[in-house]
Parts: sequence; C-alpha cells; structure tokens
Amino acid sequence: MPKISQKGLDMPASPIRKLTPFADQAKKDGKKIYHLNIGQPDIETPEGMLNALKNVDFKVWAYTASEGTATYRAKLASYYNKRAYNIAPTDILVTNGGSEGILIAMQACLNPGEEIIIPEPFYANYNSFACAADIVVKPIMSHISNGFALPEISVFESLITEKTKAIAICNPNNPTGYLYSREELEALKTLCIKHDLYLFSDEAYREFCYDGREFISPMHMEGLEEHVVVFDTVSKRYSACGARIGCLITKNKTLYQVALKFAQARLSPSLEGQIAAEAAVDTPDSYFEAVSKEYTARRDTLVSGLNAIPGVFCPNPGGAFYVVAKLPIDNADRFCQWMLESFSYQNQTVMMAPATGFYSTPGAGENEVRLAYVLCESDLQNALACLKEALIVYPGRRDN
Amino acid sequence: MPKISQKGLDMPASPIRKLTPFADQAKKDGKKIYHLNIGQPDIETPEGMLNALKNVDFKVWAYTASEGTATYRAKLASYYNKRAYNIAPTDILVTNGGSEGILIAMQACLNPGEEIIIPEPFYANYNSFACAADIVVKPIMSHISNGFALPEISVFESLITEKTKAIAICNPNNPTGYLYSREELEALKTLCIKHDLYLFSDEAYREFCYDGREFISPMHMEGLEEHVVVFDTVSKRYSACGARIGCLITKNKTLYQVALKFAQARLSPSLEGQIAAEAAVDTPDSYFEAVSKEYTARRDTLVSGLNAIPGVFCPNPGGAFYVVAKLPIDNADRFCQWMLESFSYQNQTVMMAPATGFYSTPGAGENEVRLAYVLCESDLQNALACLKEALIVYPGRRDN
Repeated sequence: MPKISQKGLDMPASPIRKLTPFADQAKKDGKKIYHLNIGQPDIETPEGMLNALKNVDFKVWAYTASEGTATYRAKLASYYNKRAYNIAPTDILVTNGGSEGILIAMQACLNPGEEIIIPEPFYANYNSFACAADIVVKPIMSHISNGFALPEISVFESLITEKTKAIAICNPNNPTGYLYSREELEALKTLCIKHDLYLFSDEAYREFCYDGREFISPMHMEGLEEHVVVFDTVSKRYSACGARIGCLITKNKTLYQVALKFAQARLSPSLEGQIAAEAAVDTPDSYFEAVSKEYTARRDTLVSGLNAIPGVFCPNPGGAFYVVAKLPIDNADRFCQWMLESFSYQNQTVMMAPATGFYSTPGAGENEVRLAYVLCESDLQNALACLKEALIVYPGRRDN
Repeated sequence: MPKISQKGLDMPASPIRKLTPFADQAKKDGKKIYHLNIGQPDIETPEGMLNALKNVDFKVWAYTASEGTATYRAKLASYYNKRAYNIAPTDILVTNGGSEGILIAMQACLNPGEEIIIPEPFYANYNSFACAADIVVKPIMSHISNGFALPEISVFESLITEKTKAIAICNPNNPTGYLYSREELEALKTLCIKHDLYLFSDEAYREFCYDGREFISPMHMEGLEEHVVVFDTVSKRYSACGARIGCLITKNKTLYQVALKFAQARLSPSLEGQIAAEAAVDTPDSYFEAVSKEYTARRDTLVSGLNAIPGVFCPNPGGAFYVVAKLPIDNADRFCQWMLESFSYQNQTVMMAPATGFYSTPGAGENEVRLAYVLCESDLQNALACLKEALIVYPGRRDN
C-alpha cells in the first residue's frame, strides 16, 4: 500500500468534529442535544438572497471568471465602500468560502517554514491551512482574565524573527468574541510597518458587533495598503454558510495578481452562489438590526447565565456569536465528551467545543469551552440548566 | 512592502487565460471570436438539475457535512455502481469541483519534493496544483503521431526513482481527447503494483466516449483498491461547470480519512450545488444520447475540417471534447495571439489554446494547438474557414 504523506499524517482532525461520534450515539440513545459547539446559526437567510437563488435563469450553468463575476465584485465593492474601505472591484477576489482565501494568502505570502503570529485561542482551521501551506503558526497567548484582549505589542516583538512574515487576527474574534479596539489595531499597524509584515484580517463576523461598538478594520488605516489582506464570507453575515462564497481583499496589486494565479488553477467560484451573494448585498438594514438584537439578547442570556453558575467565569464579548468560558473542571475534552456520553438532565444535554482545540500551546485552555449562541433564548436557558446540573455531578470537578 | 513567497512567484499563470487581454481587445475592435480555447460547453444543463436548484426549500442556507451530504453520496454511489465501480458512499468525498480533489490527493499522498509521473500534454492546472503542493511533475511524452496513446511502460519505468509516489492520467484525456484502452490501463496497474504507486485517474470526461468505445477506469480493476484515486466532477457531465461540485473517490480507507481532514478544514462543499447534483444523477439516458450524438458530429466536422487544411494534422480522438492539432506554424503562442491581434476573415477570428501550455517539457508542442469543440457545427465550420485563411496569410507559416 503506498504511503500517506507526512503532511497528511500531521494535518489536524477538526476539533469541532471529534466529538461527533459521541453526539451521534447520544442521539441514538434518545437524548436531546443543544448544539452550542458549531457556528451554524439558526437565523434565516435573507429572503432576497434565497429568491435570487430560486430565480436563476441561466440555461448553461457556466464557469465564471476565476476572480468572480464583474457584477458581484462591483456590488461587493459598494458594500465595503459604505464601510469606508475605499476599495475597487479589482481589489476583490471571490473565493470558495472564507477558507480558501486564507489558504491562498498563506501560500502566496509565506515560504515553507516561515512564520505567522496569531493570538490564541484562534480559529482551529488556521492550523490546518498552515499545515497545508507548510508554514509555522507562532501562537501568542491572550487571556480570559481581560476578555482575550490583544496581547501586549512587546510580546509580539519578542516572537518576531527573520522568519516572521505575517500577523493574523480574527475580528470580531472566533472563538472569543473579542472585538479589537482602534488602539489595538493602530499598535498592530505600527508593528507591521516596522517589521514589514503582512496583516491578515479575518472579518467573517464584521456585522456582529454589539452595544453600539464600532468595527475597525486594518483596511481603514492609511499606510497599510501593501500589508493588509482581508478575508470575508457571506456565511455568517447572511446565515448562508452553505453557499461557500467568500472573498480575499487586498490593495497590494502584486499580491492580488499572485493570488489570482492560485484562483485560476481551481477555475471559478460557483455561479449561483455569486448570483445569490450579489442579491444579498441589498439586504435591508432592518434584517441586521433584528439579527443584532437577537444575538445581543442571546449573548446577555448566555453570559449572565454562565456567570451565575458557581465556579464559572465568562467575559462579555463585544462581537461575533461565541463566548469562551472557564469551567470548574479538570479537562474540557473529557468534560465535553462526558456531557454527551454519560450525562443527561431531563433527557437533555449540551454539546460544546473544548477550547483546547483553539489553542496551539499544549495544555492551554484545558478548563475552557467555546459556546456558540446560535440557538434561541429558550434553548439557551435549557442548555444553561443542563450545564449547571452537569457541573454539580461531573466527577472531574475542580474548583480553582 | 512584504515579499511574495517563492511559490507565489513560481505558480504558473493560466495558459488558457493569458490570451484574454488580446481577445478583449479584438472584441472591442468589433471582431466576432469563435471560442475554441476553453472547455466551457454550450450544451444546456439538464432541466432536472436546474429545477432542483430553483426549488430548494431551505430557510437556513447551512453547511453540510465536510464529506458531502449523505443523500448525495448515496445517490452518487448508485451512479458509479451502475458503471461497475463497486464502491460505497463512504468511499466518496464531495469536493469543490474536480480541482479540489486533485490538490487534496497530491497533498495527502506526496511529500514536498516527491514526484508524480504524468503523460504530456496534460491538463495545465496539474502544474498549478503540484506547485501549491510543493511536489514535482515528471512529464512523459506522448505523441501526436499515434494519437497521444499511452507511452511505453518501459519509458515510465525509466523515470521511476525512490521519489516517485504516483502516476496520474486523465481519461478520456484533456487536452488530447485520447481514450485509454483496457490494455493500457492493465499495463499501468502492473506498474503501480510493482512500484507501490498511487494511480490518480481524472475522469471528468467519462461520459464523453464515441464510436461505441467503452470507458475503462482503474476502479474496474481488482488488486488496485489501495492505489486508485478517482477525481470526478459534474462540470462536463451535466454541463454544470459553474456548480463547482466534484468528488474524490478511493477505496483506500486510510487515504480517505486523511483526505477528509483536508476537507474538514474548508468546512463543506456548497449545499445547493449538492442538491442540484443529486437530482442530476436522475438525468435520463436520452440526454446523454443526444449530447453524445452532438459531440460526435462536431468532432467529425472539426477533425475532417482540420485535416482538409493543407499542412494541418489532427488525430481522431475517442473521447472528451478536445483535439490537439499540428499546424504549419513557427510558434503556437505567437500564432494564437496573432489570430486575435492581427487577423480577421469576414470580421471573424478564432481563439485557440496554444498546446505549449499543456506540455511541461520546454519547447514541446510549439506547433500544436488545443481546440475544444464546444460550439455548434455551423460555428465550427466558420471557425475552420477562418483558420484555413489564417494559415495562408500568417507570416510565421512553416511547412514541415
């Protein structure tokens, strides 16, 4: 039998999915599971977007340009320019979800063995893309005690070597929900210019900012034009994760042309996805207002509910739809599996993502879990009741 | 400004697209262009597939499983099993077009620097995927004189080193249209078992076999279960290139699990694409009969028309919808550009793909072009008239 590559062996399995067999068994056993483990919102996709999909009128389901259709890129530029990005359609490369853009940027910017600094905990698939691109992630610890704020710039400085080529942030953050401030982004700007680094900005959750707080992108900053690469997706913004339409944005013309070569190799993003995504740009503000109100209420319910459970600590995040909470437990992987395998309360249980999967430093996040508030408030209340009960009876309870 | 990676610099630009600026200018100048340069068929997508797309009834456009939906994989297995592949749905990984499967397989099977042998001319994007995966393509020359038949096995043997991990074929072949025989595939089987190599089989054009000839896949061969990886796509089969739904098939369970990890990183293929592709499996045989009749007539028109032009030689291929023809010219890149830039006949011209882009050996294919018979017969006749005229007046004409 021919051998698997070392990269194939090293590729991490999805930490979100490794509990799936236990969830499947729990379902077979008749337990109701509250799925707070993945970022699949229950929010309905905007009608205009779905209607555009249902009303496609092509007879030949053809390739589009590799960089995306001209009409979609023009419309998308208008979306960003309303948010002061000051970009042209030619700065936008349409991708298969947000994921593809991240992989392409890593390959286009970093040589094998070169390093990208990412505050941890971070979106677990960054590890997978880095493995595929043969590059090295240098994690920099952020802390639950201050809500996972950006680590001190001096700590970034201490990690920078001649191999460092980029810094990546996810803003608002998955998994922590942290929304970076203008000051934090200004500090990153100074650092990236000083050391001539790319700044990757994953903005999948841009529209999910709460409490009237403003979203700031590195795209808003002068002098960073050659450094910034933004990744975006319609997945969360329009609850259209299954459309697989994202984009990579950069004003760096050289990098754009190189990224385009990677995109040409896979021919094109989906035609119908782009048609629907183009219509989605016209989604009325009222949709986002309703969604924001809903998520704010859910966050408030979840965060206050978590903090009311003895031994639990959960910061109140400014964006996205995740929280990372510290639990009075020995080990989050063990606890989350136990919740599915050995626990139920009124024949219900909760599926969560152990935070260990979001840290690159071994052992970090062992008593933390990520919860996605993608369920309605009554379900969140039920999930909280389950979790409270579970933490009373869990054999691995540890009070710190 | 931060540097581009070496891989980004090395990534080949699409040879199909490098003539695009000249085509754009020709259009601006008011010339009608017959596009025989790309594999975008004009055939209508089956109604049942389009209707499935228009009738999607989800309210939340959600992720699917990373490996694809259970219903689509089950249906797809039935398609293959009607063709005696003897596979289970769990052998199928749904991918973003056929392209993604090829990249994943290269990464999962070959370490950086390891080698894959591919008969040339070959689908140009194999070079791009190999560049992205940091692996080395070892081309093995096939020849227009015998219609681009599989090179002698002894020549393969002479290229095999300790770095060789795989052989790749595209069957029926893009760009040559060559349909491999059972004997040729048996010879590859013996070779792959002897040297413990993977056998990649790109079968995007499976349904396009003419003159009653039978399609043979390595999946039909006993003893190769651990070696074979098939790549497929709905793009050509159902004229649905823009749906971006393909698959990777392997009975090698270890490899499947590794490929799945790469697929998990990018979350999922598109939901609506899979819904439509699932419906496409029910496309009636009459659709394929009509398409096959149409392509056979086009091929006959094109091949006989080409061979009737003085100095032109074109083998008669058994499958796909491409031919590679030898022209009495100095240089195919120059000629194809000249056709767009400096030539017109009755205000019309033809866009073709220089075959050089499909060879990895420098200088090979310099007097060959690839033509895709994706236009109706009357357009093909007009294109042939243009080409005939062009070859009379082209300043770089060279009779061999």
